[in-house]
Amino acid sequence: MAMPTMMKAAIFVEPGRIVLEDKPVPEVGPNDALVRITTTTICGTDVHILKGEYPVEAGLTVGHEPVGVIEKLGRNVRGYAEGQRVIAGAICPSGYSNACLDGLHSQDGQSGAHGLKPLGGWRFGNTIDGAQADYILVPDAMANLAPVPDGLSDEQVLMCPDIMSTGFAGAESGDIRIGDTVAVFAQGPIGLCATAGAKLKGATTIIAVETVPERMAMAERIGADLVVDFRRADPVAEIMRLTDGRGVDVAIEALGLQSTFEWCLSVLKPGGTLSSLGVYADDLTIPLAAFHAGLGDHKIVTSLCPGGKERMRRLMNVIDSGRVDLTAMVTHRYRLDEIETAYELFANQRDGVLKVAITP
Amino acid sequence: MAMPTMMKAAIFVEPGRIVLEDKPVPEVGPNDALVRITTTTICGTDVHILKGEYPVEAGLTVGHEPVGVIEKLGRNVRGYAEGQRVIAGAICPSGYSNACLDGLHSQDGQSGAHGLKPLGGWRFGNTIDGAQADYILVPDAMANLAPVPDGLSDEQVLMCPDIMSTGFAGAESGDIRIGDTVAVFAQGPIGLCATAGAKLKGATTIIAVETVPERMAMAERIGADLVVDFRRADPVAEIMRLTDGRGVDVAIEALGLQSTFEWCLSVLKPGGTLSSLGVYADDLTIPLAAFHAGLGDHKIVTSLCPGGKERMRRLMNVIDSGRVDLTAMVTHRYRLDEIETAYELFANQRDGVLKVAITP
Amino acid sequence: MAMPTMMKAAIFVEPGRIVLEDKPVPEVGPNDALVRITTTTICGTDVHILKGEYPVEAGLTVGHEPVGVIEKLGRNVRGYAEGQRVIAGAICPSGYSNACLDGLHSQDGQSGAHGLKPLGGWRFGNTIDGAQADYILVPDAMANLAPVPDGLSDEQVLMCPDIMSTGFAGAESGDIRIGDTVAVFAQGPIGLCATAGAKLKGATTIIAVETVPERMAMAERIGADLVVDFRRADPVAEIMRLTDGRGVDVAIEALGLQSTFEWCLSVLKPGGTLSSLGVYADDLTIPLAAFHAGLGDHKIVTSLCPGGKERMRRLMNVIDSGRVDLTAMVTHRYRLDEIETAYELFANQRDGVLKVAITP
Amino acid sequence: MAMPTMMKAAIFVEPGRIVLEDKPVPEVGPNDALVRITTTTICGTDVHILKGEYPVEAGLTVGHEPVGVIEKLGRNVRGYAEGQRVIAGAICPSGYSNACLDGLHSQDGQSGAHGLKPLGGWRFGNTIDGAQADYILVPDAMANLAPVPDGLSDEQVLMCPDIMSTGFAGAESGDIRIGDTVAVFAQGPIGLCATAGAKLKGATTIIAVETVPERMAMAERIGADLVVDFRRADPVAEIMRLTDGRGVDVAIEALGLQSTFEWCLSVLKPGGTLSSLGVYADDLTIPLAAFHAGLGDHKIVTSLCPGGKERMRRLMNVIDSGRVDLTAMVTHRYRLDEIETAYELFANQRDGVLKVAITP
Repeated sequence: MAMPTMMKAAIFVEPGRIVLEDKPVPEVGPNDALVRITTTTICGTDVHILKGEYPVEAGLTVGHEPVGVIEKLGRNVRGYAEGQRVIAGAICPSGYSNACLDGLHSQDGQSGAHGLKPLGGWRFGNTIDGAQADYILVPDAMANLAPVPDGLSDEQVLMCPDIMSTGFAGAESGDIRIGDTVAVFAQGPIGLCATAGAKLKGATTIIAVETVPERMAMAERIGADLVVDFRRADPVAEIMRLTDGRGVDVAIEALGLQSTFEWCLSVLKPGGTLSSLGVYADDLTIPLAAFHAGLGDHKIVTSLCPGGKERMRRLMNVIDSGRVDLTAMVTHRYRLDEIETAYELFANQRDGVLKVAITP
Repeated sequence: MAMPTMMKAAIFVEPGRIVLEDKPVPEVGPNDALVRITTTTICGTDVHILKGEYPVEAGLTVGHEPVGVIEKLGRNVRGYAEGQRVIAGAICPSGYSNACLDGLHSQDGQSGAHGLKPLGGWRFGNTIDGAQADYILVPDAMANLAPVPDGLSDEQVLMCPDIMSTGFAGAESGDIRIGDTVAVFAQGPIGLCATAGAKLKGATTIIAVETVPERMAMAERIGADLVVDFRRADPVAEIMRLTDGRGVDVAIEALGLQSTFEWCLSVLKPGGTLSSLGVYADDLTIPLAAFHAGLGDHKIVTSLCPGGKERMRRLMNVIDSGRVDLTAMVTHRYRLDEIETAYELFANQRDGVLKVAITP
Repeated sequence: MAMPTMMKAAIFVEPGRIVLEDKPVPEVGPNDALVRITTTTICGTDVHILKGEYPVEAGLTVGHEPVGVIEKLGRNVRGYAEGQRVIAGAICPSGYSNACLDGLHSQDGQSGAHGLKPLGGWRFGNTIDGAQADYILVPDAMANLAPVPDGLSDEQVLMCPDIMSTGFAGAESGDIRIGDTVAVFAQGPIGLCATAGAKLKGATTIIAVETVPERMAMAERIGADLVVDFRRADPVAEIMRLTDGRGVDVAIEALGLQSTFEWCLSVLKPGGTLSSLGVYADDLTIPLAAFHAGLGDHKIVTSLCPGGKERMRRLMNVIDSGRVDLTAMVTHRYRLDEIETAYELFANQRDGVLKVAITP
Repeated sequence: MAMPTMMKAAIFVEPGRIVLEDKPVPEVGPNDALVRITTTTICGTDVHILKGEYPVEAGLTVGHEPVGVIEKLGRNVRGYAEGQRVIAGAICPSGYSNACLDGLHSQDGQSGAHGLKPLGGWRFGNTIDGAQADYILVPDAMANLAPVPDGLSDEQVLMCPDIMSTGFAGAESGDIRIGDTVAVFAQGPIGLCATAGAKLKGATTIIAVETVPERMAMAERIGADLVVDFRRADPVAEIMRLTDGRGVDVAIEALGLQSTFEWCLSVLKPGGTLSSLGVYADDLTIPLAAFHAGLGDHKIVTSLCPGGKERMRRLMNVIDSGRVDLTAMVTHRYRLDEIETAYELFANQRDGVLKVAITP
């Protein structure tokens, strides 16, 4: 059967409007792969785009979490077969930039002058067309296509491209050790994955901070030992009480606000690490006292979602091993042609939504 | 000859007044050593104490940079001999706290409930009597006394207890690699040592930022490849120009101001590290753009001066090897009974002063 | 009630003979603590001592895994109370040697010339009297006594002093990452703890190699995803098959033989790490092919059991959190006055023994 | 001027014979670059190939250290210009394999099943035609071509592709810290670069072991503090004497023999690291005593030469900064048509040869 020449895609029109439109199916360059999307999802970042808080070009297809089937391979692409089930990370490193060759794949400048560009690895739905469509063109395919192991469903691997990778990175960049006490501030999709990642890294006292009942329940289910409702108690005082005044080894920020950032710093033990995942919209303040005037041997580390096919392989391994099950995070399901409704629900966090599955 | 029972000591009286007074020579506890000071110095932190910006108890002997001779050993102390030349670090870890056993020696809570206390390892001239006196009592002597190698003068090792250890820590915590480009903001004693440390760690483009001519000259002498005068050019623009738009791998903050902190962040490459050494007096602001909204894979790390006898041994090795020579930083010399004059000069940074040597 | 002056202790007499004898209860020095043993155990190392394969002085009390109650504190010891339930690690760092101040606590030379001594932190039942007795004297008590959390039984924490610390160190030194494939060779007490540690660090495919049915079953229960019986299949071929030819990220050696060491190296991926825990009795051979002539970016790392009160605190946290339950490893229980029988059983690995609990 | 279709190349014919022959100038694939060699050199590995000790296919062009000018770029290659002066590393990572995306660029399996292959990144003169020719085809050009900074001569950068990268890796993998004592066994080209690298990383006592007078002199010139002639004194006893019985923090093996490997292990402090660079031809033995039965917290790490354009950029930075000058290592110069003579001299280490420069 001939491949269609036109497809449906959710495109950004202007602040407040992401609409489903017709677009040509993209041409496949020599190092690309064309993937037919079987499942994708909407991310909090897409909502920032929708609201005009994160600017992208009008006409761009949004979305950066593709699960699908290889439809066509570029003529230089070896090691894959058309028809193979694959995912690609939200971040698509080229592999060949100075950043990549230095291990900094997310900040990939591709062929730019210095090989470094802030957030440069994030291309889908940012600088090139994204995943909320019938088809997606994956650039530098040999660095980015990761075959899905037999037996794993689309929904089982749907979190791998972004939130699982990001949340786990919060635990990894924090360098959590066996026996650590860790606080995770906010239990949205990213925070929940950070909680799961903290457990997977050997933290033995994990304190989740949240206030939405469904998210508090999910936090316990996914790995939190203790849950603090920040509307019922001052979370800093409560965490200091729970740790008997010691503070935490690592605090993970998973929301992007001054309050959560500041709480993180305030519950850190001397020598502790604040691992920041949030996307901030304003300047941040570091309070002098919590920072011990700069003498507390504190670390503040930030992480952009790690991508590339090896990262995806490892995350799918985690799923396949049964160590972590994130399928309960898919609370709603829509067809691609219902995506505007899905955005409406997700952007307003109605009906206890965590993540939606979108199927073309 | 019998040891005297009284001695001279520079004590903090009230904000604005550090005076030389008579004090009893301290009693030697079982794990202590009494050291007769032969040379010591004044630190920027002592000036904060003088001005009342950092509170200590009235009557405390100030100073935390001792070079001297063992006068008397506590009855449990083995492995040393009276008459031996030694130094001790500004930070005196006990060795036995949870912090120490976890490798966090500077944040040592000694026998407190959790074994962790912010800045707890800093005892001299902070929580116990310090080094600007005829004698100093070194606690947990077996963890802190470091014999001075034959052939090294007092002035050669005078920077080891604090500024050399602190400055080098800026380079070490920044995890500088061979071939890195590093900017060091401010070339006071700590910043100069950070410059020397950056060179010792293999940085190959070191950009020092300063405006005082003597300090700019000293920066070049000690390891800077390029010097930027921040009064003649915007240091951020200048560093971006010098690095051809790439930014630096590591930026070291060695002053303790919002401006230098912010400049550091602004010149960092994506994935770069801000290594902070300054003692801040106010809340800090992280500018959103320089922080790439939290997605730049940036790290911010802080370091309190590492102490303990092994650190001192290593630093004296550096001096002994001839790799680094800091003696030119001793610009003025005073007797202990002139210390009030020395404070006056040092606190006002008059006469091109970098460090003063004080000899009882 | 007055403390007795004499006690029972299992002492090494000569190769082949460890016997229970009367010994004076030790004097308590200023930095020591006297602990009344409530539970202890026998380690494989004790069997090496029994057989004369590891030489210790005649008359020494053996054993290095103490669980007990503080009977008496030395006069300088602060932060503890008599009557408190505590454990101490098999390795007792002083805290004050150069090794300790450098973070190398196990290789602690105490007050020796260089502060470094191979295995120097291992004192109990090696260079000073050990734990298989009514009482044990803990040196450098403030660095070594770790209070047992309320609610944990003696048997729950009995593995912390040695095998849990050692086994976990195999996973930690191997720097296991989330998503790693790990092989653990031999599932005796140490190997089982390495398996548990690998899981706790985020390995998602753990292959245990064993042949004793009880140990194979225990390996699965404690964390192994796959178990290879090395008597039924060549373990190298089998692991390469199970990993689809890729090899493992980390191989943990937990027996101390040439064959297991060599198997480890042979199943490593290029760039992989061999983490060695075994106590070897002979020179080892590195096969050229498995070592890729020295060009495979392989690492071989060795670990002596980490000790000290912070390590013990963390391990008891792991138990307290319910992440790992090692109580099933206590397969046999004896009174101290039956210890010769216990040795006979344990040394000959009869009756499916894993670990014995000894209670004075 | 039209590019010629034929060129001269040094090809492997059979053990004992590398001869200069005519070969077609290679076709340029879409991701390749054709580089006209202006200077290259001969490596110890090439001698192994010549002698038949390392097997390659008959007809292969040998050599893996190219300095030249871009003659022609493949149609997908962006960010470079024809006529630009460049180097490429001996190891040419693709950037897109699982190994590369995991930071293990040298063990790159390219598009193979697992993306991992021992030594897979080493292609020039091993699996594809090499640098001892008029032209070389650089695969995955965007990952591998590194522009030479203005002002650096061919001979200044000639060591970057292999021996400087390898020697420095010995210091880097050994994780040398400021103040370390380091021994480097053998001061051939690789060992000399390891000595330079150890100094650049902050080692302050560097002990070089050699016996050839020219090499001993060069070692001192390049960074060694002490030189031990292993024919005049037992190097183990001598190093223990020089370190006052303490041993070294890091020992670097740069020859590839059992004796040097064993000496390294024997001079290590407990907790020290053996960093191995040698290419071994036989199984190795780890002596039990030097290994402390596997309980000394020792590490043995191996490194294959790191490659890729970012590594090359950094190494040329080192040269450009004046920190290290390796031009004195070029002791002899030949034209490409004299290469058989050059091999004869180099293979027999006649006339004090360190490295030869070959110019087509």
